[in-house]
Amino acid sequence: MTVSDTSVAVPPPPDVNHADCPSRLILEHVTSRWGVLILAALRERSYRFSELRRHVGGVSEKMLAQTLQTLERDGFIHRDAKPVIPPRVDYSLTPLGHEVAEHVWSLARWSEEKVAAVTTAREAYDKTRAF
Amino acid sequence: MTVSDTSVAVPPPPDVNHADCPSRLILEHVTSRWGVLILAALRERSYRFSELRRHVGGVSEKMLAQTLQTLERDGFIHRDAKPVIPPRVDYSLTPLGHEVAEHVWSLARWSEEKVAAVTTAREAYDKTRAF
Repeated sequence: MTVSDTSVAVPPPPDVNHADCPSRLILEHVTSRWGVLILAALRERSYRFSELRRHVGGVSEKMLAQTLQTLERDGFIHRDAKPVIPPRVDYSLTPLGHEVAEHVWSLARWSEEKVAAVTTAREAYDKTRAF
Repeated sequence: MTVSDTSVAVPPPPDVNHADCPSRLILEHVTSRWGVLILAALRERSYRFSELRRHVGGVSEKMLAQTLQTLERDGFIHRDAKPVIPPRVDYSLTPLGHEVAEHVWSLARWSEEKVAAVTTAREAYDKTRAF
């Protein structure tokens, strides 16, 4: 038996460009349609479920619950179920969640700021293809 | 006729939390599954179509073409079709594209760095629900 027989294969560093890298799934969760908006909202303060549903326009109860659970499991969101009647559940960001929320929040703000620029670009694009 | 009759309604500022705000669609394009990875790749250098397809693991030819076209129409990507034989098409970022690529690139790098933290969080979550 040689030394090399006992060596352990070093896994390659995470790379989102590899389809089966775990980092790809993290990226997909935090950039998911509702994940982005939920994380950006929670960056500002904690929310109750029903409040969050009103805040994030268009989200269904099912999609909100599912996305919150995914983000909670990933360690980004803390779910605090208060033992009161009627039941009250607050959602807030964990320290890890705060990190990623900064990223998606600034992306959301950027998208809002660039509406005019993108609209102009689309009009120019459509014009060159209108003949 | 009073002055108020000629006034133009001022549109509300863009808000990604409104389901019909144009900023929501911009955010969805740049955070789309393949949009994120394409923008992050092009932040580093320009790519030919086939190169990009090899770089972004798992993307189909159809989804790559569709995503590139969406991002080109939004004004983020410049498509340069060289008049050579065989045809050669290069994709690169516009100045607007560079701005958004910075955001998604850092989100991609963050996702790679946090694989261990997220894996630990998931294991802890699953343990509390295993009984």
